[in-house]
Amino acid sequence: MAGKNKLQIAGGAWLRQGDSMHGELYGRIRKGIITGEMPAGFRLPSTRVLSDQLGIARSTVSLAYEHLLSEGYVESRHGSGHYVADFVTDAFERLAVTKRPSDALQVSAGHIEDDFSFVPHSFRSAIRPVPFRANYPALDRARMQAWITLYSRGIRQAARSAIHPGYFGEADAAGDPLLRRAIAEHISLSRGVRCSAEQVIVTAGSQHAMDLLMRVIGQPGRKAWIEDPCFPGALAVLRGAHLIPVPVPVDAEGIDVAHGTRTAPNACLAIVCPSKQYPLGYAMSLQRRLALIAWARQNKSWIIEDDYDSEYRFLGKPIPSLQGLDGGVHVIYIGTFSKVLFPGLRIGFIVAPPALVDPLIAVRSLAGRHGNPLDQQVLARFIVEGHLGRHIRKMRKLYRIRMESLLYAGRRWLSGAVELDPAEAGLQTLGRLSPEFNDQVVSQAAAQQGIEVADLSRYRIAVKLPPSLVFGFGGFDEREIDTGARALAKVLEALRGEAPGKGRTHPGNRS
Amino acid sequence: MAGKNKLQIAGGAWLRQGDSMHGELYGRIRKGIITGEMPAGFRLPSTRVLSDQLGIARSTVSLAYEHLLSEGYVESRHGSGHYVADFVTDAFERLAVTKRPSDALQVSAGHIEDDFSFVPHSFRSAIRPVPFRANYPALDRARMQAWITLYSRGIRQAARSAIHPGYFGEADAAGDPLLRRAIAEHISLSRGVRCSAEQVIVTAGSQHAMDLLMRVIGQPGRKAWIEDPCFPGALAVLRGAHLIPVPVPVDAEGIDVAHGTRTAPNACLAIVCPSKQYPLGYAMSLQRRLALIAWARQNKSWIIEDDYDSEYRFLGKPIPSLQGLDGGVHVIYIGTFSKVLFPGLRIGFIVAPPALVDPLIAVRSLAGRHGNPLDQQVLARFIVEGHLGRHIRKMRKLYRIRMESLLYAGRRWLSGAVELDPAEAGLQTLGRLSPEFNDQVVSQAAAQQGIEVADLSRYRIAVKLPPSLVFGFGGFDEREIDTGARALAKVLEALRGEAPGKGRTHPGNRS
Repeated sequence: MAGKNKLQIAGGAWLRQGDSMHGELYGRIRKGIITGEMPAGFRLPSTRVLSDQLGIARSTVSLAYEHLLSEGYVESRHGSGHYVADFVTDAFERLAVTKRPSDALQVSAGHIEDDFSFVPHSFRSAIRPVPFRANYPALDRARMQAWITLYSRGIRQAARSAIHPGYFGEADAAGDPLLRRAIAEHISLSRGVRCSAEQVIVTAGSQHAMDLLMRVIGQPGRKAWIEDPCFPGALAVLRGAHLIPVPVPVDAEGIDVAHGTRTAPNACLAIVCPSKQYPLGYAMSLQRRLALIAWARQNKSWIIEDDYDSEYRFLGKPIPSLQGLDGGVHVIYIGTFSKVLFPGLRIGFIVAPPALVDPLIAVRSLAGRHGNPLDQQVLARFIVEGHLGRHIRKMRKLYRIRMESLLYAGRRWLSGAVELDPAEAGLQTLGRLSPEFNDQVVSQAAAQQGIEVADLSRYRIAVKLPPSLVFGFGGFDEREIDTGARALAKVLEALRGEAPGKGRTHPGNRS
Repeated sequence: MAGKNKLQIAGGAWLRQGDSMHGELYGRIRKGIITGEMPAGFRLPSTRVLSDQLGIARSTVSLAYEHLLSEGYVESRHGSGHYVADFVTDAFERLAVTKRPSDALQVSAGHIEDDFSFVPHSFRSAIRPVPFRANYPALDRARMQAWITLYSRGIRQAARSAIHPGYFGEADAAGDPLLRRAIAEHISLSRGVRCSAEQVIVTAGSQHAMDLLMRVIGQPGRKAWIEDPCFPGALAVLRGAHLIPVPVPVDAEGIDVAHGTRTAPNACLAIVCPSKQYPLGYAMSLQRRLALIAWARQNKSWIIEDDYDSEYRFLGKPIPSLQGLDGGVHVIYIGTFSKVLFPGLRIGFIVAPPALVDPLIAVRSLAGRHGNPLDQQVLARFIVEGHLGRHIRKMRKLYRIRMESLLYAGRRWLSGAVELDPAEAGLQTLGRLSPEFNDQVVSQAAAQQGIEVADLSRYRIAVKLPPSLVFGFGGFDEREIDTGARALAKVLEALRGEAPGKGRTHPGNRS
């Protein structure tokens, strides 16, 4: 018996020296059990015998056995040692349940409510950011130092406090109270939003905010206005809630309210980006703002104001929020820290009219209870201690420089092919392609050269748009921007050099 | 002009010494602007003049001005200094928009889809845990040290890495790849779940997992089996998805499959806790497991296995998961780290049959994109480096001791009034009240004395149950448990001493 044990457990020079020796022993025995090398009822050698055989401390063997015991691979019988338990190797065989279930057993796809194919594929997997990814802030160490410092302090405080359920325990579904206050004050002052802390509901970003809102105010089967072109996440959220999206064209003054009123006067809601339309970049004019609010009041509809990156305005005055103009009656304001800080934080918020607050808190608790308390507490301090203001000020300068680097690189490498709009705010701008190009073809050819320029076509629903590309500049330095523009120039040159018409037609034949 | 500025800005001894002096100056000026003290177009004193007036460094004044500039309260006119911008004080007046919108303007409640009153109120706000809160793990520093150490290391690494979008940037909607692998391995071995890493979808806890699942497999208007009594979050999730909950009674063998098959043979899904029924504590027998799987196969229905705290089993062998028995065809497995680690982590997971994986990833991305990357990366290391196994082993011993402390305290203080079941697993157990008591009355009277004992009545849907209380022991030490039991004994004594019948009737007259 001892010889057999030795053969199986000590076979090979697999035991490395170091802290995790008990871990390796545990792993080796576990593997032996799963593969059936050590069947149910097999008696393990005593800790003394095995420690002698392997030349390791008896306590190391005991630790490994304890681990196996705790996970149920091994049973301890008083006075007679450790035995392989029978459940792992035997349970499934005894029950004669199919090991590899046949396809016939699979539940049919008809039992799945929806295939959710309308959710943008880019939402599903993280893709390494390359120039000119849109909506991407600068994430290098230097920019994030203040956050890291405060966050490290937060975790140290959690470690020092003897019992602090505030860090590890449950939290309010509506969000950390201090964070709600900090957000309310921040946006009241910087965005002219009119609200109390009680109207602020913390979410896991603006996508989450829109999704939660749909569950409270979205009436399946009813129409909803959506800007055309639009942010794909907003369109997907309407489809996910079984609303009927009504595309409303956008011009330099923002959403065409008259068009919407003609097409779908009774829409139950509208989603708009008044501060900076995505992806066109226009700010909504005061006249349109008033017309939109008038429509919502007349029709008792909701307006969702997606204010995704207005903190970074380079030119002119900050534009007060639509919510403030309306007084927060029909306008629901959505903000996020994904652009102003970083996307991995997953914190955004809704500012809701009082009637919607309780239903929103309920649906937020139903859909995952609450956010991470530590992240929220650190963010609250980040705002209250003035770091956010400093971060915005610093980053606004940086983004303005990057935007100008992009304009410069555009003039240097892309003139005659792409005309770049100077961005008044935000992390990206639009580049208008010379009419001989098809933007989808350019975007795909650029992607093959490692350059990400989203074609405007992918954001449109029904409207026709001149060929254009979205250039994100926030996440990239001068050198990256210059190299990216140069690489794009080569792509465009190659497309131009192809047979006439080849750059114009698109294999997918979409538009 | 200088005098007026001095009066307004330097008025009062409000400037404290310290780091945030520029913050105080900023706040004071901002307040002046908002209140109209400093109207639009008002010229601020030069930094030199103001620094002299206040006796502070000129750089401090400059910082405050820069902050005001960055938020748009102040405009800089080249060569002529800083002026109060007009948007804050004037914009709303100019637009003649209602300042305090009248009630008549409010959107009617009829535009809200649902009031979500079915969501348990306890989900909405964090309540400080007191004995005997159920589902609450031990959260003191000593227990959490390994986590804190690893987490601090994670944030330090984030700080060291020059550009690490993995910490700050976007992440996969399905979860961190290493975490998915770590979870798949952990539950394959410890719970007999049969899956690959690709079938694991990381969520923000088990409530989130159930909610996401409803959006993919929940067919509005169709019936769903729910254990009676049940975890209120499971019932709420069915109602939130507009399914019709069909209560199926539970006995010592688990859910009564024959009853369910008679009542609602065509239910599209069933939610069960086979390892440890909540709140009754029973494990589902093998016969019932096989019957439940047979029903699901016959009817092509889904079974959601909520395996919320099976890691902490004190007696007998670990019971392999229902998912493993079924081979993962009809059974969808749900797990959470809220009990095994801590609720504030907000990480759980779904193990889905392959056909559901893509729709679940899509709906998860729609409902908030992805989880916090740092939390997930730290948890992955916590599992892979063996900390989770050690934590479970250590905590299992602790919880067993606490469970025995509860049984001891029960015999000492509550005998004749409450009979406590020894828990075979988990963080709570059931106490059966002597039949003269009404459990709702006891629970409410106890709450007034700062003791939390959930009455069994609140978990029931249609079934009649003997008066019982749920005793959580996981989060409380021997002293707290003893003190809690003694306080409860006094509550019961007082109720007994009241007029006959008074302890029996409940003011809400629910059952």
